Amino acid sequence: MAIKEGLRPGGRSARVQESVHSAVRELLEAHERSSITVPMIAAHAGVTPSTIYRRWGDLSVLLADVALARLRPDSEPADTGSLRGDLQAWAEQYLDEMSTDVGRNMMRDVQSSVTPGYCVSILGGQLQAIVDRYPQETAPSVDRLINLLAAPTVFRILFSAQPLAVEELHALIELALKN
Amino acid sequence: MAIKEGLRPGGRSARVQESVHSAVRELLEAHERSSITVPMIAAHAGVTPSTIYRRWGDLSVLLADVALARLRPDSEPADTGSLRGDLQAWAEQYLDEMSTDVGRNMMRDVQSSVTPGYCVSILGGQLQAIVDRYPQETAPSVDRLINLLAAPTVFRILFSAQPLAVEELHALIELALKN
Repeated sequence: MAIKEGLRPGGRSARVQESVHSAVRELLEAHERSSITVPMIAAHAGVTPSTIYRRWGDLSVLLADVALARLRPDSEPADTGSLRGDLQAWAEQYLDEMSTDVGRNMMRDVQSSVTPGYCVSILGGQLQAIVDRYPQETAPSVDRLINLLAAPTVFRILFSAQPLAVEELHALIELALKN
Repeated sequence: MAIKEGLRPGGRSARVQESVHSAVRELLEAHERSSITVPMIAAHAGVTPSTIYRRWGDLSVLLADVALARLRPDSEPADTGSLRGDLQAWAEQYLDEMSTDVGRNMMRDVQSSVTPGYCVSILGGQLQAIVDRYPQETAPSVDRLINLLAAPTVFRILFSAQPLAVEELHALIELALKN
């Protein structure tokens, strides 16, 4: 398939997805989330509402899809030269991102997704990339890192009056690194 | 204040709360949750819709309130005679309850509550009651138990394809008990 300049590969379907996702992201920045409707998104994206209903079913599925796309990392986790340093950099960034309103709403939307497990597989991929940099070390398993770093970060943001303090996060990293 | 037989203390306000909560619980058992409306709950509870709107504002707040009330434990955590045993019993029951559809929906509703932090304070109270039974042991802090037991349990249910296995939960308890 020939790819025209300025267009992403994948043809019409990918272009529809990209313009609908952008429309949702832009509307979420400018409006109360509860005021956003499918016809509003369609108008902003330059597609018909039925295109959106056909592809995503309803608004919650579309919001979940946009949230999952945001979770996909733009870049490799920071490489600080040590396993401990990489985990600290990754965990601090994750805590920062999830503590914002955008992060919080993203976590709620992802729960409405038909594939919430995709969230853990993205996190797992990032943590695996870090662990793979240090084959000479007896690194913790990715499951252990998810249970000890990602889980408390998210749980405290969603269900507690206070997010994790950075010192608590560091203590959890030390615990994860202990044999 | 005199308490009439058969009535809970607190007068009319407590009776309204009790009958509205019961109505929500019964309707949730019999209907798709997305089909439940405030007028339906009002009819079932024998109150007017405006009573519900005045007291709870909207449906999501009412559902969150019912979810939080369910979190309140009916009884003390099981007393097995050892700290490890009590934590295992507590954590296994928590995993069981949260893995059901009722538990999952409850966790989602609680996030819409104006006081989601209430969730962690209830869990903290139960864990503190366990720890207080063993003053002679150097028990882990309640925060540590929440981060290592409750957080992975909930995170995996909400965001992963698979809940925690009981063996993983036991390994996390051992980690929490280690100094």
